[in-house]
Amino acid sequence: MPARPEDAGELSTTDRTGLRRRRDRGTHDRPVALAILDEGLLAHVGVNDGGTTVVTPMTYARVDEQLYLHGSPANRTLRLIADGAEACVTVTLLDALVLARSAFHHSMNYRCVMLFGTGTVVEDNAEKLAASAALLDHMAAGRSSDARMPTPSEFRSTLIIRFPIDEGSAKVRTGGPVDDDEDLALPIWAGQIPFDLVGGTGVPEPDLPDGTVVPPYASRYPSRGPVGSTGTH
Amino acid sequence: MPARPEDAGELSTTDRTGLRRRRDRGTHDRPVALAILDEGLLAHVGVNDGGTTVVTPMTYARVDEQLYLHGSPANRTLRLIADGAEACVTVTLLDALVLARSAFHHSMNYRCVMLFGTGTVVEDNAEKLAASAALLDHMAAGRSSDARMPTPSEFRSTLIIRFPIDEGSAKVRTGGPVDDDEDLALPIWAGQIPFDLVGGTGVPEPDLPDGTVVPPYASRYPSRGPVGSTGTH
Repeated sequence: MPARPEDAGELSTTDRTGLRRRRDRGTHDRPVALAILDEGLLAHVGVNDGGTTVVTPMTYARVDEQLYLHGSPANRTLRLIADGAEACVTVTLLDALVLARSAFHHSMNYRCVMLFGTGTVVEDNAEKLAASAALLDHMAAGRSSDARMPTPSEFRSTLIIRFPIDEGSAKVRTGGPVDDDEDLALPIWAGQIPFDLVGGTGVPEPDLPDGTVVPPYASRYPSRGPVGSTGTH
Repeated sequence: MPARPEDAGELSTTDRTGLRRRRDRGTHDRPVALAILDEGLLAHVGVNDGGTTVVTPMTYARVDEQLYLHGSPANRTLRLIADGAEACVTVTLLDALVLARSAFHHSMNYRCVMLFGTGTVVEDNAEKLAASAALLDHMAAGRSSDARMPTPSEFRSTLIIRFPIDEGSAKVRTGGPVDDDEDLALPIWAGQIPFDLVGGTGVPEPDLPDGTVVPPYASRYPSRGPVGSTGTH
Protein backbone atom coordinates (compact mmCIF):
# COMPACT_ATOMS: atom_id res chain seq x y z
CA MET A 1 0.00 0.00 0.00
CA PRO A 2 1.61 3.29 -1.00
CA ALA A 3 1.77 5.59 1.98
CA ARG A 4 0.11 8.96 1.47
CA PRO A 5 1.61 11.94 3.28
CA GLU A 6 -0.98 11.84 6.02
CA ASP A 7 -0.36 8.14 6.53
CA ALA A 8 3.20 8.62 7.62
CA GLY A 9 4.42 8.60 11.16
CA GLU A 10 3.17 6.99 14.29
CA LEU A 11 0.14 6.97 16.50
CA SER A 12 0.75 8.95 19.66
CA THR A 13 1.12 7.20 22.98
CA THR A 14 0.50 7.77 26.65
CA ASP A 15 0.75 5.43 29.60
CA ARG A 16 -2.34 3.58 28.47
CA THR A 17 -0.97 2.86 25.00
CA GLY A 18 2.55 2.02 26.07
CA LEU A 19 2.34 -1.56 24.78
CA ARG A 20 3.11 -2.91 28.21
CA ARG A 21 3.79 -6.43 26.99
CA ARG A 22 4.25 -8.43 23.80
CA ARG A 23 6.19 -5.55 22.40
CA ASP A 24 7.04 -7.71 19.43
CA ARG A 25 3.37 -7.77 18.44
CA GLY A 26 2.61 -4.13 19.08
CA THR A 27 3.22 -1.19 16.83
CA HIS A 28 2.42 2.47 16.67
CA ASP A 29 3.02 2.45 12.94
CA ARG A 30 0.30 4.61 11.41
CA PRO A 31 0.00 2.95 7.97
CA VAL A 32 -0.50 -0.44 9.66
CA ALA A 33 -3.28 0.98 11.81
CA LEU A 34 -4.99 2.75 8.92
CA ALA A 35 -4.93 -0.39 6.75
CA ILE A 36 -6.63 -2.38 9.51
CA LEU A 37 -9.28 0.32 9.94
CA ASP A 38 -9.92 0.37 6.20
CA GLU A 39 -10.29 -3.40 5.95
CA GLY A 40 -12.56 -3.86 8.98
CA LEU A 41 -16.32 -3.44 8.95
CA LEU A 42 -17.13 -3.40 12.65
CA ALA A 43 -15.69 -1.49 15.56
CA HIS A 44 -16.28 -2.34 19.19
CA VAL A 45 -16.72 0.91 21.06
CA GLY A 46 -16.23 0.97 24.82
CA VAL A 47 -17.41 3.74 27.14
CA ASN A 48 -17.92 4.16 30.83
CA ASP A 49 -21.65 4.56 31.44
CA GLY A 50 -22.09 5.71 34.99
CA GLY A 51 -19.48 3.32 36.31
CA THR A 52 -20.30 0.42 34.03
CA THR A 53 -18.11 -0.38 31.04
CA VAL A 54 -20.26 -0.97 27.96
CA VAL A 55 -18.88 -2.37 24.68
CA THR A 56 -21.07 -1.91 21.61
CA PRO A 57 -20.52 -2.96 17.99
CA MET A 58 -20.76 -0.15 15.44
CA THR A 59 -20.04 0.52 11.81
CA TYR A 60 -17.58 3.27 11.07
CA ALA A 61 -15.60 4.90 8.30
CA ARG A 62 -12.28 6.64 8.03
CA VAL A 63 -11.55 9.98 6.35
CA ASP A 64 -7.88 10.85 6.58
CA GLU A 65 -7.03 10.99 10.29
CA GLN A 66 -10.62 10.89 11.50
CA LEU A 67 -12.95 8.03 12.23
CA TYR A 68 -16.69 8.63 11.91
CA LEU A 69 -19.24 6.84 14.05
CA HIS A 70 -22.94 7.40 13.53
CA GLY A 71 -26.34 6.33 14.70
CA SER A 72 -29.56 7.46 16.25
CA PRO A 73 -29.39 10.44 18.60
CA ALA A 74 -30.93 8.02 21.10
CA ASN A 75 -27.94 5.66 20.93
CA ARG A 76 -26.59 5.64 24.46
CA THR A 77 -22.90 5.16 23.60
CA LEU A 78 -22.95 7.87 20.94
CA ARG A 79 -24.74 10.24 23.30
CA LEU A 80 -22.12 9.68 25.99
CA ILE A 81 -19.34 10.37 23.49
CA ALA A 82 -21.22 13.46 22.28
CA ASP A 83 -21.29 14.62 25.90
CA GLY A 84 -17.53 14.28 26.17
CA ALA A 85 -16.97 10.74 27.47
CA GLU A 86 -13.66 9.12 26.58
CA ALA A 87 -14.00 6.07 24.39
CA CYS A 88 -11.92 3.13 23.27
CA VAL A 89 -12.54 2.10 19.68
CA THR A 90 -11.19 -1.34 18.81
CA VAL A 91 -11.23 -2.95 15.36
CA THR A 92 -10.07 -6.57 15.10
CA LEU A 93 -9.52 -8.75 12.06
CA LEU A 94 -9.19 -12.48 12.62
CA ASP A 95 -6.68 -13.90 10.16
CA ALA A 96 -6.10 -17.45 11.38
CA LEU A 97 -6.49 -19.89 14.20
CA VAL A 98 -3.05 -21.10 15.19
CA LEU A 99 -3.05 -24.73 16.29
CA ALA A 100 0.03 -25.84 18.18
CA ARG A 101 1.01 -29.38 19.25
CA SER A 102 0.49 -28.28 22.84
CA ALA A 103 -2.78 -26.81 24.09
CA PHE A 104 -0.77 -24.13 25.84
CA HIS A 105 0.63 -22.63 22.64
CA HIS A 106 -2.62 -22.39 20.69
CA SER A 107 -3.12 -18.84 19.51
CA MET A 108 -4.66 -16.76 16.79
CA ASN A 109 -3.32 -14.53 14.10
CA TYR A 110 -5.09 -11.22 14.14
CA ARG A 111 -4.67 -7.57 13.39
CA CYS A 112 -6.13 -5.14 15.86
CA VAL A 113 -6.25 -1.39 16.29
CA MET A 114 -7.15 0.18 19.62
CA LEU A 115 -7.82 3.93 19.65
CA PHE A 116 -8.35 6.14 22.68
CA GLY A 117 -9.80 9.60 22.73
CA THR A 118 -12.82 11.83 22.87
CA GLY A 119 -15.14 12.51 19.98
CA THR A 120 -16.80 15.61 18.59
CA VAL A 121 -20.32 15.94 17.28
CA VAL A 122 -20.30 16.85 13.59
CA GLU A 123 -22.53 19.89 13.10
CA ASP A 124 -21.48 21.14 9.68
CA ASN A 125 -23.66 19.85 6.84
CA ALA A 126 -20.78 19.56 4.38
CA GLU A 127 -18.85 17.40 6.83
CA LYS A 128 -22.01 15.39 7.58
CA LEU A 129 -22.38 14.73 3.88
CA ALA A 130 -18.73 13.71 3.51
CA ALA A 131 -19.01 11.44 6.55
CA SER A 132 -22.20 9.85 5.23
CA ALA A 133 -20.55 9.19 1.89
CA ALA A 134 -17.53 7.67 3.65
CA LEU A 135 -19.75 5.45 5.78
CA LEU A 136 -21.52 4.13 2.66
CA ASP A 137 -18.33 3.72 0.65
CA HIS A 138 -16.74 1.88 3.56
CA MET A 139 -19.56 -0.67 3.29
CA ALA A 140 -19.25 -0.95 -0.48
CA ALA A 141 -16.99 1.14 -2.71
CA GLY A 142 -19.10 3.42 -4.85
CA ARG A 143 -22.28 3.08 -2.82
CA SER A 144 -22.43 6.81 -2.07
CA SER A 145 -22.84 7.50 -5.80
CA ASP A 146 -25.74 5.06 -6.04
CA ALA A 147 -27.80 5.73 -2.91
CA ARG A 148 -30.07 8.70 -2.28
CA MET A 149 -28.04 10.91 0.03
CA PRO A 150 -29.55 12.33 3.22
CA THR A 151 -31.95 15.24 3.39
CA PRO A 152 -31.53 18.02 5.98
CA SER A 153 -34.30 16.38 8.00
CA GLU A 154 -32.52 13.03 7.93
CA PHE A 155 -29.30 14.71 9.03
CA ARG A 156 -31.16 16.09 12.04
CA SER A 157 -32.12 12.51 12.93
CA THR A 158 -28.55 11.21 12.77
CA LEU A 159 -25.83 11.68 15.32
CA ILE A 160 -22.42 11.69 13.63
CA ILE A 161 -19.30 11.68 15.77
CA ARG A 162 -15.79 12.51 14.61
CA PHE A 163 -13.19 10.51 16.52
CA PRO A 164 -9.47 11.19 16.14
CA ILE A 165 -7.10 8.53 14.85
CA ASP A 166 -4.33 9.77 17.05
CA GLU A 167 -3.66 8.02 20.33
CA GLY A 168 -3.57 4.26 20.17
CA SER A 169 -1.73 1.23 18.98
CA ALA A 170 -1.99 -1.72 16.67
CA LYS A 171 -1.23 -5.34 17.37
CA VAL A 172 -0.44 -7.92 14.73
CA ARG A 173 0.31 -11.60 15.15
CA THR A 174 1.40 -13.59 12.13
CA GLY A 175 3.01 -16.94 11.49
CA GLY A 176 2.67 -20.45 12.77
CA PRO A 177 2.59 -21.88 16.27
CA VAL A 178 5.63 -21.64 18.53
CA ASP A 179 5.83 -25.02 20.20
CA ASP A 180 8.41 -26.13 22.70
CA ASP A 181 11.28 -28.10 21.18
CA GLU A 182 10.37 -31.28 23.02
CA ASP A 183 6.91 -31.28 21.41
CA LEU A 184 8.06 -31.00 17.80
CA ALA A 185 8.40 -34.74 17.28
CA LEU A 186 4.87 -35.47 18.46
CA PRO A 187 2.64 -36.78 15.66
CA ILE A 188 0.12 -33.99 16.21
CA TRP A 189 -1.04 -31.82 13.33
CA ALA A 190 -0.04 -28.20 13.85
CA GLY A 191 -0.44 -25.19 11.64
CA GLN A 192 -2.71 -22.32 10.74
CA ILE A 193 -6.33 -22.32 9.68
CA PRO A 194 -6.82 -19.09 7.72
CA PHE A 195 -10.04 -17.12 8.16
CA ASP A 196 -11.67 -14.60 5.92
CA LEU A 197 -14.80 -12.52 6.23
CA VAL A 198 -16.42 -13.15 2.87
CA GLY A 199 -19.18 -11.08 1.30
CA GLY A 200 -21.59 -13.12 -0.81
CA THR A 201 -23.87 -12.29 -3.69
CA GLY A 202 -26.36 -9.58 -2.84
CA VAL A 203 -29.94 -10.61 -2.18
CA PRO A 204 -32.13 -7.95 -3.79
CA GLU A 205 -35.30 -6.58 -2.29
CA PRO A 206 -38.28 -8.21 -4.00
CA ASP A 207 -39.83 -4.89 -5.03
CA LEU A 208 -37.01 -3.25 -7.00
CA PRO A 209 -38.33 -1.50 -10.13
CA ASP A 210 -37.76 -3.32 -13.41
CA GLY A 211 -34.47 -2.37 -14.97
CA THR A 212 -32.73 -1.47 -11.70
CA VAL A 213 -29.03 -1.86 -12.38
CA VAL A 214 -27.20 -4.38 -10.19
CA PRO A 215 -24.03 -2.63 -9.00
CA PRO A 216 -20.72 -4.53 -9.03
CA TYR A 217 -20.53 -4.81 -5.22
CA ALA A 218 -23.95 -6.52 -5.19
CA SER A 219 -23.14 -9.06 -7.88
CA ARG A 220 -19.69 -9.89 -6.54
CA TYR A 221 -18.58 -8.29 -3.30
CA PRO A 222 -14.84 -7.66 -3.48
CA SER A 223 -12.31 -8.98 -0.98
CA ARG A 224 -11.68 -6.35 1.67
CA GLY A 225 -8.01 -7.09 2.13
CA PRO A 226 -5.31 -9.64 2.72
CA VAL A 227 -6.47 -13.08 3.76
CA GLY A 228 -4.96 -15.06 6.56
CA SER A 229 -1.49 -14.65 7.90
CA THR A 230 -0.19 -17.12 5.40
CA GLY A 231 -0.60 -14.94 2.38
CA THR A 232 -2.60 -17.69 0.66
CA HIS A 233 -6.18 -17.56 -0.52
CA MET B 1 -30.98 -26.07 17.88
CA PRO B 2 -32.60 -28.24 20.56
CA ALA B 3 -32.63 -26.41 23.85
CA ARG B 4 -30.96 -28.23 26.70
CA PRO B 5 -32.36 -27.77 30.20
CA GLU B 6 -29.69 -25.26 31.16
CA ASP B 7 -30.36 -23.28 28.01
CA ALA B 8 -33.88 -22.39 29.02
CA GLY B 9 -34.97 -19.08 30.45
CA GLU B 10 -33.65 -15.61 30.18
CA LEU B 11 -30.55 -13.63 30.94
CA SER B 12 -31.01 -11.48 33.99
CA THR B 13 -31.32 -7.74 33.71
CA THR B 14 -30.55 -4.60 35.62
CA ASP B 15 -30.74 -0.95 34.65
CA ARG B 16 -27.75 -1.35 32.38
CA THR B 17 -29.25 -4.23 30.44
CA GLY B 18 -32.74 -2.84 30.22
CA LEU B 19 -32.66 -2.59 26.42
CA ARG B 20 -33.35 1.10 26.53
CA ARG B 21 -34.15 1.39 22.84
CA ARG B 22 -34.76 -0.74 19.76
CA ARG B 23 -36.69 -3.11 21.93
CA ASP B 24 -37.69 -5.00 18.82
CA ARG B 25 -34.06 -5.98 18.28
CA GLY B 26 -33.20 -6.83 21.85
CA THR B 27 -33.81 -10.05 23.67
CA HIS B 28 -32.94 -11.66 26.96
CA ASP B 29 -33.67 -15.06 25.47
CA ARG B 30 -30.97 -17.37 26.77
CA PRO B 31 -30.82 -19.91 23.90
CA VAL B 32 -30.34 -17.03 21.42
CA ALA B 33 -27.44 -15.67 23.47
CA LEU B 34 -25.81 -19.10 23.90
CA ALA B 35 -26.02 -19.85 20.17
CA ILE B 36 -24.27 -16.57 19.36
CA LEU B 37 -21.54 -17.30 21.91
CA ASP B 38 -21.05 -20.78 20.47
CA GLU B 39 -20.77 -19.54 16.90
CA GLY B 40 -18.41 -16.63 17.58
CA LEU B 41 -14.64 -16.91 17.80
CA LEU B 42 -13.70 -13.53 19.25
CA ALA B 43 -14.99 -11.58 22.20
CA HIS B 44 -14.28 -7.92 22.83
CA VAL B 45 -13.69 -7.48 26.54
CA GLY B 46 -14.05 -4.03 28.07
CA VAL B 47 -12.73 -3.01 31.48
CA ASN B 48 -12.05 0.22 33.30
CA ASP B 49 -8.30 0.51 33.75
CA GLY B 50 -7.69 3.32 36.19
CA GLY B 51 -10.33 5.54 34.60
CA THR B 52 -9.65 4.56 31.00
CA THR B 53 -11.95 2.17 29.17
CA VAL B 54 -9.95 -0.49 27.35
CA VAL B 55 -11.48 -2.92 24.85
CA THR B 56 -9.39 -5.99 24.00
CA PRO B 57 -10.09 -8.89 21.63
CA MET B 58 -9.89 -12.35 23.20
CA THR B 59 -10.73 -15.91 22.42
CA TYR B 60 -13.14 -17.62 24.75
CA ALA B 61 -15.18 -20.75 25.24
CA ARG B 62 -18.47 -21.61 26.87
CA VAL B 63 -19.17 -24.42 29.29
CA ASP B 64 -22.82 -24.47 30.35
CA GLU B 65 -23.52 -21.10 31.96
CA GLN B 66 -19.89 -20.02 32.18
CA LEU B 67 -17.62 -18.30 29.76
CA TYR B 68 -13.88 -18.93 30.05
CA LEU B 69 -11.29 -16.32 29.15
CA HIS B 70 -7.59 -17.08 29.30
CA GLY B 71 -4.18 -15.68 28.66
CA SER B 72 -0.88 -14.78 30.17
CA PRO B 73 -0.89 -13.79 33.85
CA ALA B 74 0.68 -10.55 32.55
CA ASN B 75 -2.37 -9.73 30.42
CA ARG B 76 -3.60 -6.45 31.83
CA THR B 77 -7.32 -6.96 31.19
CA LEU B 78 -7.30 -10.48 32.65
CA ARG B 79 -5.37 -9.28 35.69
CA LEU B 80 -7.90 -6.52 36.32
CA ILE B 81 -10.75 -9.02 36.08
CA ALA B 82 -8.84 -11.39 38.37
CA ASP B 83 -8.61 -8.52 40.86
CA GLY B 84 -12.37 -8.04 40.79
CA ALA B 85 -12.95 -5.47 38.06
CA GLU B 86 -16.33 -5.54 36.36
CA ALA B 87 -16.16 -6.38 32.68
CA CYS B 88 -18.35 -6.20 29.62
CA VAL B 89 -17.89 -9.12 27.24
CA THR B 90 -19.35 -8.54 23.78
CA VAL B 91 -19.48 -11.08 20.95
CA THR B 92 -20.74 -9.86 17.58
CA LEU B 93 -21.46 -11.81 14.39
CA LEU B 94 -21.84 -9.80 11.20
CA ASP B 95 -24.49 -11.45 9.02
CA ALA B 96 -25.10 -8.93 6.26
CA LEU B 97 -24.68 -5.39 5.09
CA VAL B 98 -28.11 -3.92 4.50
CA LEU B 99 -28.16 -1.49 1.59
CA ALA B 100 -31.21 0.76 1.42
CA ARG B 101 -32.22 3.14 -1.37
CA SER B 102 -31.55 6.02 1.01
CA ALA B 103 -28.20 6.51 2.72
CA PHE B 104 -30.07 7.13 5.95
CA HIS B 105 -31.55 3.63 6.13
CA HIS B 106 -28.37 1.65 5.48
CA SER B 107 -27.82 -0.83 8.26
CA MET B 108 -26.33 -4.18 9.07
CA ASN B 109 -27.71 -7.51 10.11
CA TYR B 110 -25.87 -8.80 13.09
CA ARG B 111 -26.22 -10.92 16.17
CA CYS B 112 -24.61 -9.64 19.32
CA VAL B 113 -24.38 -10.72 22.95
CA MET B 114 -23.33 -8.28 25.64
CA LEU B 115 -22.57 -9.75 29.07
CA PHE B 116 -21.87 -7.84 32.27
CA GLY B 117 -20.33 -9.19 35.43
CA THR B 118 -17.27 -10.01 37.42
CA GLY B 119 -15.04 -12.98 36.82
CA THR B 120 -13.35 -15.52 39.06
CA VAL B 121 -9.86 -16.94 38.73
CA VAL B 122 -9.99 -20.69 38.11
CA GLU B 123 -7.73 -22.39 40.68
CA ASP B 124 -8.86 -25.99 40.52
CA ASN B 125 -6.81 -28.14 38.13
CA ALA B 126 -9.77 -30.22 37.03
CA GLU B 127 -11.68 -27.07 36.06
CA LYS B 128 -8.55 -25.67 34.38
CA LEU B 129 -8.33 -28.83 32.31
CA ALA B 130 -12.01 -28.68 31.38
CA ALA B 131 -11.69 -25.02 30.47
CA SER B 132 -8.58 -25.67 28.36
CA ALA B 133 -10.37 -28.44 26.52
CA ALA B 134 -13.36 -26.16 25.92
CA LEU B 135 -11.12 -23.38 24.62
CA LEU B 136 -9.51 -25.78 22.13
CA ASP B 137 -12.78 -27.40 21.08
CA HIS B 138 -14.31 -23.95 20.58
CA MET B 139 -11.55 -23.27 18.03
CA ALA B 140 -12.01 -26.63 16.31
CA ALA B 141 -14.30 -29.43 17.44
CA GLY B 142 -12.22 -32.37 18.64
CA ARG B 143 -8.98 -30.44 18.98
CA SER B 144 -8.69 -31.21 22.70
CA SER B 145 -8.41 -34.92 21.86
CA ASP B 146 -5.59 -34.24 19.43
CA ALA B 147 -3.40 -31.68 21.20
CA ARG B 148 -1.04 -32.31 24.08
CA MET B 149 -2.93 -31.02 27.09
CA PRO B 150 -1.26 -28.66 29.60
CA THR B 151 1.21 -29.71 32.25
CA PRO B 152 0.96 -28.40 35.82
CA SER B 153 3.77 -25.97 35.00
CA GLU B 154 1.90 -24.69 31.95
CA PHE B 155 -1.23 -24.26 34.05
CA ARG B 156 0.76 -22.06 36.40
CA SER B 157 1.68 -19.88 33.43
CA THR B 158 -1.92 -19.44 32.31
CA LEU B 159 -4.54 -17.21 33.84
CA ILE B 160 -8.00 -18.68 33.32
CA ILE B 161 -11.05 -16.63 34.27
CA ARG B 162 -14.57 -17.94 34.71
CA PHE B 163 -17.15 -15.33 33.71
CA PRO B 164 -20.86 -15.85 34.33
CA ILE B 165 -23.34 -15.93 31.45
CA ASP B 166 -25.99 -14.34 33.57
CA GLU B 167 -26.58 -10.62 33.25
CA GLY B 168 -26.78 -9.29 29.76
CA SER B 169 -28.74 -9.16 26.57
CA ALA B 170 -28.63 -10.13 22.94
CA LYS B 171 -29.46 -8.04 19.92
CA VAL B 172 -30.39 -9.44 16.54
CA ARG B 173 -31.22 -7.58 13.35
CA THR B 174 -32.48 -9.55 10.38
CA GLY B 175 -34.19 -8.81 7.10
CA GLY B 176 -33.91 -6.25 4.37
CA PRO B 177 -33.72 -2.47 4.43
CA VAL B 178 -36.66 -0.43 5.62
CA ASP B 179 -36.89 2.45 3.16
CA ASP B 180 -39.41 5.24 3.21
CA ASP B 181 -42.38 4.66 0.92
CA GLU B 182 -41.49 7.59 -1.32
CA ASP B 183 -38.08 6.01 -2.08
CA LEU B 184 -39.38 2.63 -3.19
CA ALA B 185 -39.82 3.61 -6.82
CA LEU B 186 -36.25 4.90 -7.16
CA PRO B 187 -34.16 2.77 -9.53
CA ILE B 188 -31.55 2.13 -6.83
CA TRP B 189 -30.45 -1.39 -6.02
CA ALA B 190 -31.35 -2.31 -2.44
CA GLY B 191 -30.95 -5.53 -0.56
CA GLN B 192 -28.65 -7.53 1.64
CA ILE B 193 -25.07 -8.59 1.10
CA PRO B 194 -24.57 -11.68 3.27
CA PHE B 195 -21.29 -12.11 5.14
CA ASP B 196 -19.68 -15.21 6.51
CA LEU B 197 -16.49 -15.81 8.45
CA VAL B 198 -15.01 -18.69 6.48
CA GLY B 199 -12.28 -21.02 7.68
CA GLY B 200 -10.00 -22.23 4.91
CA THR B 201 -7.79 -25.26 4.45
CA GLY B 202 -5.22 -25.61 7.18
CA VAL B 203 -1.63 -24.68 6.36
CA PRO B 204 0.57 -27.27 8.10
CA GLU B 205 3.81 -26.48 9.83
CA PRO B 206 6.69 -27.50 7.55
CA ASP B 207 8.28 -29.77 10.15
CA LEU B 208 5.42 -32.16 11.00
CA PRO B 209 6.68 -35.77 11.34
CA ASP B 210 5.93 -38.04 8.40
CA GLY B 211 2.61 -39.76 8.78
CA THR B 212 1.02 -37.08 10.96
CA VAL B 213 -2.72 -37.44 10.48
CA VAL B 214 -4.52 -34.40 9.08
CA PRO B 215 -7.60 -33.92 11.27
CA PRO B 216 -10.95 -33.12 9.63
CA TYR B 217 -10.99 -29.51 10.86
CA ALA B 218 -7.62 -28.88 9.17
CA SER B 219 -8.60 -30.35 5.82
CA ARG B 220 -12.00 -28.69 5.70
CA TYR B 221 -12.96 -26.32 8.48
CA PRO B 222 -16.69 -26.64 9.14
CA SER B 223 -19.17 -23.77 8.98
CA ARG B 224 -19.63 -22.37 12.46
CA GLY B 225 -23.29 -21.54 12.10
CA PRO B 226 -26.03 -19.96 10.07
CA VAL B 227 -24.90 -17.67 7.28
CA GLY B 228 -26.35 -14.26 6.62
CA SER B 229 -29.74 -13.10 7.66
CA THR B 230 -31.20 -14.35 4.45
CA GLY B 231 -30.92 -18.02 5.23
CA THR B 232 -29.01 -18.59 2.00
CA HIS B 233 -25.52 -19.98 1.62
